[in-house]
Amino acid sequence: MANSKYEYVKKFEVDDKLPPHNWIVLRIDGCHFHRFSADHMFEKPNDENALNLMNICAVTMLEHFPDIVFAYGVTFILKETTEFYQRRASKILSLGVSYFTSVYVMKWKDFFPHKELREPPPFDGLKVICCYPRAKIVRDYLAWRQVDCHINNQYNTCFWMLVKSGKTEREAQESLKGTLAKDKNELLFQQFSVNYDKLPAMFRKGSCVYVDKVEETVKLDDSGNPVKRVRKKVTVGHFDIIGPKFWNEHPYILEEE
Amino acid sequence: MANSKYEYVKKFEVDDKLPPHNWIVLRIDGCHFHRFSADHMFEKPNDENALNLMNICAVTMLEHFPDIVFAYGVTFILKETTEFYQRRASKILSLGVSYFTSVYVMKWKDFFPHKELREPPPFDGLKVICCYPRAKIVRDYLAWRQVDCHINNQYNTCFWMLVKSGKTEREAQESLKGTLAKDKNELLFQQFSVNYDKLPAMFRKGSCVYVDKVEETVKLDDSGNPVKRVRKKVTVGHFDIIGPKFWNEHPYILEEE
Amino acid sequence: MANSKYEYVKKFEVDDKLPPHNWIVLRIDGCHFHRFSADHMFEKPNDENALNLMNICAVTMLEHFPDIVFAYGVTFILKETTEFYQRRASKILSLGVSYFTSVYVMKWKDFFPHKELREPPPFDGLKVICCYPRAKIVRDYLAWRQVDCHINNQYNTCFWMLVKSGKTEREAQESLKGTLAKDKNELLFQQFSVNYDKLPAMFRKGSCVYVDKVEETVKLDDSGNPVKRVRKKVTVGHFDIIGPKFWNEHPYILEEE
Amino acid sequence: MANSKYEYVKKFEVDDKLPPHNWIVLRIDGCHFHRFSADHMFEKPNDENALNLMNICAVTMLEHFPDIVFAYGVTFILKETTEFYQRRASKILSLGVSYFTSVYVMKWKDFFPHKELREPPPFDGLKVICCYPRAKIVRDYLAWRQVDCHINNQYNTCFWMLVKSGKTEREAQESLKGTLAKDKNELLFQQFSVNYDKLPAMFRKGSCVYVDKVEETVKLDDSGNPVKRVRKKVTVGHFDIIGPKFWNEHPYILEEE
Repeated sequence: MANSKYEYVKKFEVDDKLPPHNWIVLRIDGCHFHRFSADHMFEKPNDENALNLMNICAVTMLEHFPDIVFAYGVTFILKETTEFYQRRASKILSLGVSYFTSVYVMKWKDFFPHKELREPPPFDGLKVICCYPRAKIVRDYLAWRQVDCHINNQYNTCFWMLVKSGKTEREAQESLKGTLAKDKNELLFQQFSVNYDKLPAMFRKGSCVYVDKVEETVKLDDSGNPVKRVRKKVTVGHFDIIGPKFWNEHPYILEEE
Repeated sequence: MANSKYEYVKKFEVDDKLPPHNWIVLRIDGCHFHRFSADHMFEKPNDENALNLMNICAVTMLEHFPDIVFAYGVTFILKETTEFYQRRASKILSLGVSYFTSVYVMKWKDFFPHKELREPPPFDGLKVICCYPRAKIVRDYLAWRQVDCHINNQYNTCFWMLVKSGKTEREAQESLKGTLAKDKNELLFQQFSVNYDKLPAMFRKGSCVYVDKVEETVKLDDSGNPVKRVRKKVTVGHFDIIGPKFWNEHPYILEEE
Repeated sequence: MANSKYEYVKKFEVDDKLPPHNWIVLRIDGCHFHRFSADHMFEKPNDENALNLMNICAVTMLEHFPDIVFAYGVTFILKETTEFYQRRASKILSLGVSYFTSVYVMKWKDFFPHKELREPPPFDGLKVICCYPRAKIVRDYLAWRQVDCHINNQYNTCFWMLVKSGKTEREAQESLKGTLAKDKNELLFQQFSVNYDKLPAMFRKGSCVYVDKVEETVKLDDSGNPVKRVRKKVTVGHFDIIGPKFWNEHPYILEEE
Repeated sequence: MANSKYEYVKKFEVDDKLPPHNWIVLRIDGCHFHRFSADHMFEKPNDENALNLMNICAVTMLEHFPDIVFAYGVTFILKETTEFYQRRASKILSLGVSYFTSVYVMKWKDFFPHKELREPPPFDGLKVICCYPRAKIVRDYLAWRQVDCHINNQYNTCFWMLVKSGKTEREAQESLKGTLAKDKNELLFQQFSVNYDKLPAMFRKGSCVYVDKVEETVKLDDSGNPVKRVRKKVTVGHFDIIGPKFWNEHPYILEEE
């Protein structure tokens, strides 16, 4: 039976190849994540298990897709020269989101052994696929995300401290309205004896996942000198990525061709 | 801390709204599904449990996303006038794929209680998002898929019959080379006493999922006459969707505005 | 000398094919046409020569590009099934705009024998290329343009009447603020004894260009009966295209496949 | 009269903004230029008047659109940071092509006082609009064009010499088949005593148009020292743009932000 009569429908397919020589950013995000965290009673403002589950998903992504050179939270950077799926946006997006979701669901019980996953985690891509023409702009993108992380975390830390101390959510919101960064730090210190800068870096800085190059001694040679080799290892860290320090120490991550 | 210095990176976001008054087709597909089925020892040529798991996922999709009016296998049709996520392709794609994947992983154990899910199911969107300007063309698209299903199933049925009867995969392939539909039916009948047309419709026709409108008697009124109402029910069926019969009986599914 | 070293730059080309089975609308427009008309002292509110020049350009377009089935002013409709330049948006756009511009400049002197063309006419495509999935929507698009033409022309007629009668442009603007269609007709009639409906149809309705099918007698046959044939002729008219009459009389123009 | 009923048609408009921080290349080209040159009896292989007309058009483009930083032949480079028409591809394309065409038609008689322009010049955009993420790639693009110009010109020079010396076009084609660059130079020298490298640079190198910064003495100051200023001047040249020399001398042309 010939299929040709209907095959014209294939002509509606759209070529969605991303332009060459651009870094590809895939940002998975949760559209109704607030409700999902409430339903699963995540701790506020930060649930360490939930964050570690996310990080394991990110690590698995880097291990599975070698062209991902960096992840910050749920934002993944594919290297400028990747030819993964011929750079087709919809393939990269759907494969990445599907894989991430699978790992999240499959590893849930490792991080929440006593909590059942009650509904599908609502991952979609908030600002799904973007192309950035230069490493410098990718760094600005990541800085933008980390500034955002900081602002949100500082606010949420204050908010939940106030709520846990007896305020209603509305009252907490009111008392934070218009406050600056230093006001919030002051509030934490004065009212709750919390030094914001001493809170875990994972909360304040977010999580970076990347391939680290670790030099290790394999054996000693015949003259007794150490024989070294560079081993690649997917690593999670909670660094400042706004300043140049991290990037200077890991120049190979965003190296332009 | 002002974020404005980095906010220019948002300008790289692309508007990917799909054109109005077009039917949207989302086709989820498995890129390395052969390996996945082998790893999980799915029955050949058709694993009933695996198909039923797929169908439950499709049913859940229609229940969760009310703008999906029809599914054929893993192809989903969104109604022409949907404003779901402002018709943004990447949102529809990522949310659909993520939800489908989650349900697949979460329901796995209901269908394979004695088989562990060993790796993420490899769903990506093969021909991810297409726009079809008329209901007529959507029907041609679905016909194209059903013809394809038929051709593949007939071939696979023969192939695995031959293999199970002692041929190598290579020999099976050789003996099917160049055969027509009627040759294959003849082969099944002569060598294996199998009447292809009597095989389960789910294998031959694939699975359609849609909202059926069922009329039911709620009670009798004071005069003893039945009071009826139309109830909507997500339904799975294995019909011919190439001819007009199904569509004539369910005109509301692909109704143009 | 091999060129291959640089040929990678071709990979940056983008596929911009318009989707099949959609009507293509090319709308050429003048971005700074006000200044251009002032510089060339076009008559206000309508310069008949300028309009006729535009119409000749549109006629030439239909003669030169057989897939253009209809023009309204400077809006051109390409038939749903056109394969002109493989439906590549940028080719259709640039070729159409270039051809239109050339004809405008080359024919200028036929319509303005005593006026020199002092600067390039500023044609660009205001809402350049659109795809419309159904003939019904193309008709709505054209209706939208004709309503717009009517509203603008009525306003401009009043405005220039007032200005020519001694008001400043500002005063004219003020006295028209907030007036409805019937107020404007009343104003024209009361103050200037002008019956708006008697003004030339070209001003009120705009110009339609299309291929008319004219039946004509070629000769008499041996029995003395007329032998007729249908001749195609690019025709300019100033009809109402909002109602169904014109379309009912010319069903072949927007016929869907 | 309300227009709102039809205004939904505007929703079909597509956002075609080009991504930020990319150099924009607009390449106008002639789709049937061979026929056009034959019809107007341009000299072979190069018609100096026709080339000079093209160059004047390019100069006028740079004067009119200040964001064009460089032209090579009919390829125009818009600076990386241009916000011209909000970087909308269709606007840049249609406005550029329309302006170029107008100038070509209007200036025709200055270059061909005794030849009538018989038909619209067939300009369309062959590879219309491309985005290049780095100055380095723009240079490779231009190098690619200049290599192409060289190969074509060398071939055409040989071809027309042979034809003018009595060969048929077919014979000329045959005798050039498979020849290398040095064979062609040899042929020109042996058979026609032509030293290819002595032919006009405009033929061999093509034409570059750019804004040159010329230092000039305005006056002498009170102490008798020259007061200088930098004057910008649109300039045509026929340089090598494959090597670094020109770019080192004019670093401001492709300066990245």
